[in-house]
Amino acid sequence: MKDEEVLSLHAKHRGVLAISPEFAVHNKQELGEAYTPGVAIISKLIERYPELKDKYTLSGKLVALVTDGSAVLGLGNIGPAGGLPIVEGKALLYKDLSGVNALPLTIAQVSPDEVVNTLKNMQASFAGFHLEDIAAPRCFEIEEKLSQLVDIPVYHDDQEGTAIVVLAGLINAAKVVGKGLASLKVVINGVGASGVATARLLFAAGIKNISFVDIHGPVHADSTEYNHYQTDLVKQSSDQTRYANLDEAVRGRDVFIGLSDADVLSADQVQQMADNPIIFALANPKPEIDPAVAHEAGVQVMATGSSQYPNQVNNILVFPGLYKGLLATDLNKVDFGLEKAVAQGIAKLVPEPTADRFVPGVFDDGVVDAVAQAVKDYAANKQ
Amino acid sequence: MKDEEVLSLHAKHRGVLAISPEFAVHNKQELGEAYTPGVAIISKLIERYPELKDKYTLSGKLVALVTDGSAVLGLGNIGPAGGLPIVEGKALLYKDLSGVNALPLTIAQVSPDEVVNTLKNMQASFAGFHLEDIAAPRCFEIEEKLSQLVDIPVYHDDQEGTAIVVLAGLINAAKVVGKGLASLKVVINGVGASGVATARLLFAAGIKNISFVDIHGPVHADSTEYNHYQTDLVKQSSDQTRYANLDEAVRGRDVFIGLSDADVLSADQVQQMADNPIIFALANPKPEIDPAVAHEAGVQVMATGSSQYPNQVNNILVFPGLYKGLLATDLNKVDFGLEKAVAQGIAKLVPEPTADRFVPGVFDDGVVDAVAQAVKDYAANKQ
Repeated sequence: MKDEEVLSLHAKHRGVLAISPEFAVHNKQELGEAYTPGVAIISKLIERYPELKDKYTLSGKLVALVTDGSAVLGLGNIGPAGGLPIVEGKALLYKDLSGVNALPLTIAQVSPDEVVNTLKNMQASFAGFHLEDIAAPRCFEIEEKLSQLVDIPVYHDDQEGTAIVVLAGLINAAKVVGKGLASLKVVINGVGASGVATARLLFAAGIKNISFVDIHGPVHADSTEYNHYQTDLVKQSSDQTRYANLDEAVRGRDVFIGLSDADVLSADQVQQMADNPIIFALANPKPEIDPAVAHEAGVQVMATGSSQYPNQVNNILVFPGLYKGLLATDLNKVDFGLEKAVAQGIAKLVPEPTADRFVPGVFDDGVVDAVAQAVKDYAANKQ
Repeated sequence: MKDEEVLSLHAKHRGVLAISPEFAVHNKQELGEAYTPGVAIISKLIERYPELKDKYTLSGKLVALVTDGSAVLGLGNIGPAGGLPIVEGKALLYKDLSGVNALPLTIAQVSPDEVVNTLKNMQASFAGFHLEDIAAPRCFEIEEKLSQLVDIPVYHDDQEGTAIVVLAGLINAAKVVGKGLASLKVVINGVGASGVATARLLFAAGIKNISFVDIHGPVHADSTEYNHYQTDLVKQSSDQTRYANLDEAVRGRDVFIGLSDADVLSADQVQQMADNPIIFALANPKPEIDPAVAHEAGVQVMATGSSQYPNQVNNILVFPGLYKGLLATDLNKVDFGLEKAVAQGIAKLVPEPTADRFVPGVFDDGVVDAVAQAVKDYAANKQ
């Protein structure tokens, strides 16, 4: 694939999406049905019963896919305009993979409160918010406040999406190595948006012992160089040891989860982990440790974020089916219960996990429907 | 057309629009071109040259069609949700009539400044704003501030759309009655969003003598019961007479422009106007004076807002072609020059106007292209 080919593909239609009509208007009769005077019937009905907007207008099926371009994987802060191709590509995936109508939007890098107000003011236009590539820690504040203020689901793919697919992979990886999920000792290297959300979900799934390392070294409960979202995680962990460095934080661990940078984990460090270690080296495009190096060091159960290796831990496994399911239910929150249900739904797609295959492929038949079904079942059980 | 038919038509697909892909993603190769890793090439390019977003993403072709549902023709303030079917129907017309991709959005009825901030924060997602059915006087403040703060066109259909099509009709109507446009003595009854914008454009087109009447009677330069947008218009007029009522304000006038309510103009009042009066009775669905009554009273040159009568003055003549043209140019303001150029483009579609036909039909071939061409010619001459 050459750069020129990609550029001309995206320039051909100005982007990869369009707005399409569900029917054509060519004369006064059709005009009257689609627009005035017919539309007045619907407007008056919705004025009385605003919830009916989801039945009679696009707002019942349209997901706002919003970035500010502040934390794009591998590219960093590329600005609101720079983020547009990302959300547009993702909206295309929604449509192609699960039929969900997602609208790519970019928002100025204003204060978290102003982002929240902006989206809240537009909420009646949409059936849900999918936040994308918003930097930590602002993403935590934005998601928390927004989900309290609106009555539609708020989902940050870099947070809940990654957390769900990591948990799904870990459920199966634990089976492969014959260890109980809740008893796993985990180290998370990289405690940004995805690291924080992953830790929260692993705690919610019963894991108790997690150590954390980021750019300034191990995170402690009283670290001043880390934000409170990060230090709060340490307080939740059963392990309060003050590790001096990654070497120490990794030692004896059952699981390494890397959400950081290429080549930060060495063969020596892997060899200091517990027997049958599980390595999720999810930095993209280059993982925290090359799979060949890891295998050389004795690792058998490994996932990466790349399609080049087996067991790709990728959010594409989650979001298309998640919103397909959400749009079919009345759920208006993406909570831990839902995240766990979806993770289990994904894990079950590989009923007999092995080291070679414990995560389903992103284009496997049935992934989208299994995720959507998990959402619907969760909604049904909740009632 | 029965209510049930309209409702089932709009419920069938949850609204009348969808997001559609420009191409399909089924495998890793296509995924790489449409999304990662291919999309990173485009994101990096746009990070360096943000203006290229309009070439490579949907933001170069997508018009945000925004209402707050506060002033829907014939329905009043029906709330943000109630406004959705209106903007959705209009977005369908854009697509069907001129191929323009318009996205229906509704916004909470927050302060004008917060509306402006909300839209400004999202501006990089769009190629232009089309405001719809926002009540006066908030619509004036919103449009004025927004168009100063963003670098894409801002157009309020109820203001500029109506103003343009009224001017187009008036250019031809003046020919039919053999009077010069600039010398016409006009009365505008109904000085809301459309009345104010129409008056502004008529002044810009050279008309000097306009009197104004609204709900509290004639508007004077020092009226305290009217807002400054309304009283400012009076100050622009060559006629500062303090009329006592509509009877007086209409007397001797060449043109009556009604943007008000059904049946507010009487046969007696019409007979007090100048010879060969021009009546634009644009209240919808029932005009300010029934055409049969007006003809009985001697009126020959008359337009309404309804498709039931000849010479329908309807914004559909304007907006599909206007944005088709704008998207093909670098214009980022809808100014009086552009509005006049479009009005002339529409007027020219009826080269030999008669009383029976001085306004083109909304579904006539060539309307959209003539308007778009007028925009492009205006842009070319401006450079």
